[in-house]
Amino acid sequence: MISENQYFDGNVKSLGYETIDGKSTIGIINPGEYKFGTAQKEIMTVVEGELLALLPESEEWETFRAGSYFEVPANSSFKVKATSQTAYLCQYR
Amino acid sequence: MISENQYFDGNVKSLGYETIDGKSTIGIINPGEYKFGTAQKEIMTVVEGELLALLPESEEWETFRAGSYFEVPANSSFKVKATSQTAYLCQYR
Repeated sequence: MISENQYFDGNVKSLGYETIDGKSTIGIINPGEYKFGTAQKEIMTVVEGELLALLPESEEWETFRAGSYFEVPANSSFKVKATSQTAYLCQYR
Repeated sequence: MISENQYFDGNVKSLGYETIDGKSTIGIINPGEYKFGTAQKEIMTVVEGELLALLPESEEWETFRAGSYFEVPANSSFKVKATSQTAYLCQYR
């Protein structure tokens, strides 16, 4: 099954699927700033475009370009900013 | 806008967006074999999982793992096979 999800009034949409290593989603983030909470550890990889991320316990925004990734621990929150539509992969591992 | 598309009875779903270089989609392919036609040139990159592809004018299936890509010219068709849910990026350039 391919699940369909949307958040922030449709400004973030994702498709969910399963791999042998765990669940994943791919999604698109419209320009803007968003705060996400995590239930599990997440590995976020930028597929196309660019994200700025404010990670838990960090005070500085970091830039992540296509091909780069960041990890977010379970039960935390992080913010991302996009200035153009950006595609990401999120792996719950 | 983030467009939502589905094909083959929901066995392939994608999300469409725009970049400064042209349109792109990211999507998920369920296990199975599918034939796609192209209107424009497409660059298909495997994001997670693995695809077998039978490219135009080729007689052999080639394997593409995460991070690898293939190009398909405009106005042609190609087949892909997946044995597990596979995520891809398709860039129309």
